[in-house]
Amino acid sequence: MRKVPVKLGENSYDILMGHGLREEICSFLRERKYSRRSLLISDSNVAPLYGEAVLKTLREAGLEPEIYVAPAGEHSKSLAEAEKIYTRAIGFGLDRKSPILALGGGVVGDLAGFVAATYMRGVPFIQLPTSLLAQVDSSVGGKVAVNHSMGKNLIGCFYQPEAVFMDLDFMASLPKREIHTGLGEIVKYGIISDADFFCFLEENSKAVLALEPDALIRMIARSCEIKAGVVAEDEKESGLRRILNFGHTIAHAIERETGYVRYNHGEAVAIGMMGAAYISRAMGMVDEMTVERLLHLMELLHLPVKAEGCTVEKMYHAIFHDKKTVNGKVNWVLMESIGKVALRSDVPEEIVKRAMQECMD
Amino acid sequence: MRKVPVKLGENSYDILMGHGLREEICSFLRERKYSRRSLLISDSNVAPLYGEAVLKTLREAGLEPEIYVAPAGEHSKSLAEAEKIYTRAIGFGLDRKSPILALGGGVVGDLAGFVAATYMRGVPFIQLPTSLLAQVDSSVGGKVAVNHSMGKNLIGCFYQPEAVFMDLDFMASLPKREIHTGLGEIVKYGIISDADFFCFLEENSKAVLALEPDALIRMIARSCEIKAGVVAEDEKESGLRRILNFGHTIAHAIERETGYVRYNHGEAVAIGMMGAAYISRAMGMVDEMTVERLLHLMELLHLPVKAEGCTVEKMYHAIFHDKKTVNGKVNWVLMESIGKVALRSDVPEEIVKRAMQECMD
Repeated sequence: MRKVPVKLGENSYDILMGHGLREEICSFLRERKYSRRSLLISDSNVAPLYGEAVLKTLREAGLEPEIYVAPAGEHSKSLAEAEKIYTRAIGFGLDRKSPILALGGGVVGDLAGFVAATYMRGVPFIQLPTSLLAQVDSSVGGKVAVNHSMGKNLIGCFYQPEAVFMDLDFMASLPKREIHTGLGEIVKYGIISDADFFCFLEENSKAVLALEPDALIRMIARSCEIKAGVVAEDEKESGLRRILNFGHTIAHAIERETGYVRYNHGEAVAIGMMGAAYISRAMGMVDEMTVERLLHLMELLHLPVKAEGCTVEKMYHAIFHDKKTVNGKVNWVLMESIGKVALRSDVPEEIVKRAMQECMD
Repeated sequence: MRKVPVKLGENSYDILMGHGLREEICSFLRERKYSRRSLLISDSNVAPLYGEAVLKTLREAGLEPEIYVAPAGEHSKSLAEAEKIYTRAIGFGLDRKSPILALGGGVVGDLAGFVAATYMRGVPFIQLPTSLLAQVDSSVGGKVAVNHSMGKNLIGCFYQPEAVFMDLDFMASLPKREIHTGLGEIVKYGIISDADFFCFLEENSKAVLALEPDALIRMIARSCEIKAGVVAEDEKESGLRRILNFGHTIAHAIERETGYVRYNHGEAVAIGMMGAAYISRAMGMVDEMTVERLLHLMELLHLPVKAEGCTVEKMYHAIFHDKKTVNGKVNWVLMESIGKVALRSDVPEEIVKRAMQECMD
C-alpha cells in the first residue's frame, strides 16, 4: 500500500493506493464522525462490477448507504443529472454530515463531487476512482464540474475530497482503450516536471502497458505526487497549476471539434501534447530530438498523435472558447525540455495554425 | 461612509455603507485586475429603478457590463434560472476573471452568488444589496444558494464576495413590509450578542422604523459587525455560526407550512424568535420578563409574533427537514439572557410543541 498526502492546509487529505483497501476504507469511515445516511454514486458500467462489494464495506463501517447509478457516459455530467441526485439525497434524508462517495471514472467523480460540493453547501466527499485516468488525474486536485451544452466543465467548483482510495484491483476490468487514455496524462507528468519519470516510461513501456503491479503502482503514485505538489502550490489555478494543462488547449479543441466521441480525453491530450511540442519547437524552445522522443514514447504506449475529423480553422477558433482563455488571450503551456515547461502568451497565430496542421497530416 | 471589514484570511473583504457610493465602486473596480466583460444580475423590481445607474458606474470603471434581469420573487432562486444565466454568461464571453455583480435583495444575491461560485469554478463576486434584509443578513457571510422543489437553499456553496457596497439611497424605494423583514434580523443580533444594541432598538424604535439616517447606519453597521465577527470565527458553520440561526428553526417550519407566501423571512424569524424564547423559558434559561421585553420590542417594530395557518403537528414534523438537523437531532439556539445564546440539543418534544402552540394562539 502507498500513501500520497495532498497538502492543502485545512483541506489536506491522503490518497491511498493498493490492492484491496476494504480495511483501510472501513477504519477511515469509523474514525470520522459522519452521519450514517450516505450515498454511493456510480454508473451503469461500474456499479454492476463493484457496487455491491463497496456497499458491503460501507455497511461494515457502520453506514447506511444508498446507491445512485447514473447512466455511463459523459452526458451524465449535467445539471439535470445532478438535480436527480439532489432529489434522491433529500428523499433519503442525507444531512450535512452525510458522506457522498464516488465509485467510477472521471465522469462519476466530477458529477458526484459537484453534488457533494453543492448539496446543503457541501458535504463530506470521498473518491473511489476505478479508471487509470481518474486515478492519475481527475480524482486529485479538487476540480469538480458538470458540463453545459455550450462547453465542458463550465459549471463547477474547487472542492477537495476528504480521502481518495485507489483499489488497483479495479484495474482488472478496464478496457484497453481506457488504459491508454490514462497513459496520456501519465506521460504529461513526466514532460511537465520529471525527466527521470519520462525515462522510466520509455524504458519500461511494456510493463507499463501491461499494468504490471510494480510499474502500475509506481506510475500512479508518481503521477499523484506530481499533481498533488502542483495543486498544493496553487489550489485555485491562479498560476503554477496551469502547467497541468500542458497539451490541453489543443486537446479541448480536438474534443470539441470531434463532438467528444471520436477521441477520449487521454487520446486527445496525447495529440495536444504533440501540438504543444511543435509550437515549442517553432518558438525555438526545444529541438527536433525532443519532439522525436515524445513521438516515440506515444507510439510505444499506443497513443495517437494525429487527429482526424478536424480542420485548422475550426480548431483555432475553438481555443478561444477554452476556460483558460482570459480577456481573449490564450496562455500556452510550452516545453523548455523534458521535465520543464513554461507559460507563454505570445505565440503568433501562424505558429499555432502550423502546429495544428502538423497534428492532422 | 462606514466600513466593516470581514476577516476571513485570504477571503477577507470589506463592507462599505453610505449614501451614494459611485466613486467607491469605481475606484475599487479600477484597482482590481478584472476582465472587462462583466455581468450585472438584478430582478424585475430593482433593475428598472437602479439598473441603468449601476451600469453607468461600471462603464465609468472601464468594464463592459451586460445586465441579466431575473423575474422578481423567490421562484427565481432555482437551478433553471441559474442555467439561463450560465448560458447568457457563456454567450457573452465571460471568463474566469469576469466579475458578477448582484443588484437586489436576498434572492438576487443568493442566485447571483451561486452562479458566481460555480461558473467556471468561481469568478469574482460583488454584492450591491438593495434591501434592508439583504444588507444585514444575506449579503454578509458568503452563503449562496438556490432552492430545490423539496426545500429552500438546499443547493449552494460557501462563497465570499470580494466586496459589498450598501448604498443607503436604495432604501428610499423600499416598501414598509420589506423594512420590517429587515428589522426581524436586526433584533436577532441584539438578542444573540449585544444587549446594548437591543436597548438602542428599544429606546429608538421610532427613528429605527422611520429609517432616520443616523439610526439606519448604526443598525446596519452594528448588525454587519456582529455577523462578520461570528462568520470570521466559523466560516463554514461547524459551530459558533449556528447562533445566527436563533429563531430560524421555527421560522423555517412556519415558512414551509405557509407555502413561503404568507410571511416573509423576517416576519417568520420574529415569530420563530418568540418560539425560541418560550422554549428557553420552559427550559428554565430565561424568566418571564425577558420574554415580555422581546414581545414588546417586536410590537414597537411592527413585527408579528403569532403565526396563522400552521398546525403544531405539521410544524413539529417540518423541523426535521431543516438543513441544520444532523443525524435526526435538532440543535436549538436558545436564550440565556438578552445578548447571550446557547446551543441545546436536549429539548423534549413536549416543550417544543407547547412553544409552537404559544406562537399560534
